[in-house]
Amino acid sequence: MHLDIALLGFGNVARALARLLDVKAATLRDEYDLTFRVTGIATQSRGCAIDPDGLDLQAALRAVEAGERLDTLHKGEPVSDTLAFIDVCPADLVMEATWLNPRTGQPATDYVRAALKAGRHVVTANKGPVAFAYQELRALAAEKDLGFFFESTVMDGAPVLSVGREGLLATTILRIQGVLNSTTNFVLSALEQGTTFDEAVRQAQAIGVAEADSATDLEGWDATVKTVVLANVIMGADLHPADVDRTGIMGITVQDAQAALEAGERIKLLCDVVNENGAVRASVKPTRLPLRDPLCQVSRTSSAVTFQTDTLHQLTIVEGDTDPTTTAYGMLVDMVNIARGRFRGS
Amino acid sequence: MHLDIALLGFGNVARALARLLDVKAATLRDEYDLTFRVTGIATQSRGCAIDPDGLDLQAALRAVEAGERLDTLHKGEPVSDTLAFIDVCPADLVMEATWLNPRTGQPATDYVRAALKAGRHVVTANKGPVAFAYQELRALAAEKDLGFFFESTVMDGAPVLSVGREGLLATTILRIQGVLNSTTNFVLSALEQGTTFDEAVRQAQAIGVAEADSATDLEGWDATVKTVVLANVIMGADLHPADVDRTGIMGITVQDAQAALEAGERIKLLCDVVNENGAVRASVKPTRLPLRDPLCQVSRTSSAVTFQTDTLHQLTIVEGDTDPTTTAYGMLVDMVNIARGRFRGS
Repeated sequence: MHLDIALLGFGNVARALARLLDVKAATLRDEYDLTFRVTGIATQSRGCAIDPDGLDLQAALRAVEAGERLDTLHKGEPVSDTLAFIDVCPADLVMEATWLNPRTGQPATDYVRAALKAGRHVVTANKGPVAFAYQELRALAAEKDLGFFFESTVMDGAPVLSVGREGLLATTILRIQGVLNSTTNFVLSALEQGTTFDEAVRQAQAIGVAEADSATDLEGWDATVKTVVLANVIMGADLHPADVDRTGIMGITVQDAQAALEAGERIKLLCDVVNENGAVRASVKPTRLPLRDPLCQVSRTSSAVTFQTDTLHQLTIVEGDTDPTTTAYGMLVDMVNIARGRFRGS
Repeated sequence: MHLDIALLGFGNVARALARLLDVKAATLRDEYDLTFRVTGIATQSRGCAIDPDGLDLQAALRAVEAGERLDTLHKGEPVSDTLAFIDVCPADLVMEATWLNPRTGQPATDYVRAALKAGRHVVTANKGPVAFAYQELRALAAEKDLGFFFESTVMDGAPVLSVGREGLLATTILRIQGVLNSTTNFVLSALEQGTTFDEAVRQAQAIGVAEADSATDLEGWDATVKTVVLANVIMGADLHPADVDRTGIMGITVQDAQAALEAGERIKLLCDVVNENGAVRASVKPTRLPLRDPLCQVSRTSSAVTFQTDTLHQLTIVEGDTDPTTTAYGMLVDMVNIARGRFRGS
């Protein structure tokens, strides 16, 4: 199988993906009989480039990392914006890793919808489209016999959603609990060690764990959107982020964190989805967890999720320290699974 | 799709499977368009029964649990033994859960080979065939376009092998570490609490965690065979149990366990597979692990495995307390994945 690929976004994750595609090209060809070309890259601030014969990925990486625009690599008519790019770039697969507003799920949701409507398979690292429009986009992909995969939206490249798709079959998922946000993990761990809240946030920003605007993490928006992805995709719910009972970690103090520790517990921003006879309720709240709970061992950029089903009492997946390549790897796996037709049938 | 199923063995796991098949029949039909009949059951000590029109599973369960033989349910010519049963029982799929000698992998290996040769798909809960003859059996299944799945051989129903098959694609597995044996877990936890070794083994036997002959567990045979399954299936190695550097937990004392705990560590029987540029080495040894290691949190009948790959720094799967239904569930998932054709292609 051959896939022509259009990349949306060329930030840390998409650039890590470009490098990983290069590194893994021989493996994809030898193990999965899968070849590819990247025929276009669209960015927010660095212009875009389309080449139906395949872009030189290394040249694109050099350009963007030198602060230059991609337009010098472009062949053909100028393209006005990303939606126009999605239509005109000749591609079988759109791989989407643009900046996301977790409060609205945009612009990624519009991009994914446009790509599916244009007949492209879609792989996205963005939670937004899945949290805000999963049932619509899934139906659209199915109607057009297209793949729509998004492993990297929860716990980066860890196989969480593929476990739901391939491993948790014919089972009723009773509860999903997770510790899924790095910034709050980092801050809560720092509080335990006596670092003040504001200083902990500054440290998280300094090492790149937290965004400059850390409020979406601290207020639990990122965790909320991931919670909705898990509920909708793995539990088959139809939740919207506004349905989640959300409390951030603002207001948690060194004293709170250390008192928990003295009691053999840790405060974590816990994502919790409960299925009560088909009625699904979700919350995101600072919660004290006992140290023996695998979710409690998660710190810094680690994350973990626990499934409780009618056939498995407790299944936990823990991912250790992550980086953009980890996220890019989830996208690569999605691409292989699209090539293998894993989106077809039940 | 319809599958006629022959069951080999009708002990705790196979009976849990029979019940689970009954409970999940409607789900399998509605969600996976999969119907089935059990057309035969062969046992070591309770005889066997074949009915081409489908056995009454409830009647079979009642008979065996009342200490009776299955022969009263049998239709047709008498069947001499399990190998003859495999040939004559009309079945698309053989589901195998017989008693295993972990030192030889028999008789399960012969049963699986015979079933594949007779053109049946195979699901086994037995580590033996996979540890002792994986490459041969895999080639045989591929040659005949048959499914050969065995999710329950490692960590019961937890999706460990399906993660390897569906989630860890196009990646180099550098290391696999696991805590995979319940008896040694139980005994080591009890030692930490001051229970003597012999008393801990007796307790493990009393609650059914350990077999009457606990030596295969305590000497690390069970863990060794699981280690080989992971190495061969997920890392693509071709190890034999004799290749594993094996040390059991005999000789570990209360003092050893408590000294580790005081140092912030726990002794676990660690399964360790290392891939050094394609050269795979495996060991099973009592090892001190720091408490923050997710493998260290595993106790009693829990188990855990950690993968380290060139794209994921640390991926851990932890399974909480297990029972025969958990194991049976892994077999049910294998059955669905065979019906979905997941054994075809790469």
